[in-house]
Amino acid sequence: MNDVTGLLTLQTITGTGLRFGAHFASGREVTFDSGADSVAANPVEALLGALAACEAMDVISILRKKRLHVTAYHVEMGGERAESHPRRYTAITLTHRVTGRGVPQAAVAEALALSEGRYCSVRHTLDPAVPVTHRVEVLEA
Amino acid sequence: MNDVTGLLTLQTITGTGLRFGAHFASGREVTFDSGADSVAANPVEALLGALAACEAMDVISILRKKRLHVTAYHVEMGGERAESHPRRYTAITLTHRVTGRGVPQAAVAEALALSEGRYCSVRHTLDPAVPVTHRVEVLEA
Repeated sequence: MNDVTGLLTLQTITGTGLRFGAHFASGREVTFDSGADSVAANPVEALLGALAACEAMDVISILRKKRLHVTAYHVEMGGERAESHPRRYTAITLTHRVTGRGVPQAAVAEALALSEGRYCSVRHTLDPAVPVTHRVEVLEA
Repeated sequence: MNDVTGLLTLQTITGTGLRFGAHFASGREVTFDSGADSVAANPVEALLGALAACEAMDVISILRKKRLHVTAYHVEMGGERAESHPRRYTAITLTHRVTGRGVPQAAVAEALALSEGRYCSVRHTLDPAVPVTHRVEVLEA
């Protein structure tokens, strides 16, 4: 299925809260929030997380296909935003940090290049003018 | 603060699962998942939700400033994706449905236009080549 459909609902209908729940036709959900007392990521955070997770899902899938032994996987996410409205992202840096047993750095870099170039739907929906810098770190378990 | 930072962690390190948790410096969190047994939205769903929520947070904030009485707020989200990799979004349709007491449709349309044109950080980080179509529906409570 290539279509994504869902319903977003304002949960804090009274007061000044900005919490919204998104329910997708797939049955999956995500909550967005904003402001001082918020309980979930705001949309701008969620966008950065979606990009990082999209890439990381591709990378770990490829590493698993290669039978590489990964014991931990983290992505350090950093995004700079413009000072003035609409405060878009002006630069994103993602450091993919893979811990494992004998995982070659080149295998991670290659998997990440495949994600960037061919697979990551989120990356290819973002403005190509937003620079995304990648770093790869491999640690021995 | 204009910078967004956080750490994404693979939670399903064993097996074939693709669940990642993102923890932001703000203290807020979001979970991404993918595949048959997933429990949270996948990155592509989260991206669509982030766009809808970004706009809806702007719109409800503006309607509240105008002292308009909104009793329910939903956004119907629809996204079409390309058939072939990277399966980017090729068209997005967002129907903002506001229920209230005497809320003028023009007020909602105007708030949405402000979000699109000036405020929505997510929209302005997406590829401007992805067409986003908006509809506004106002229902009397």
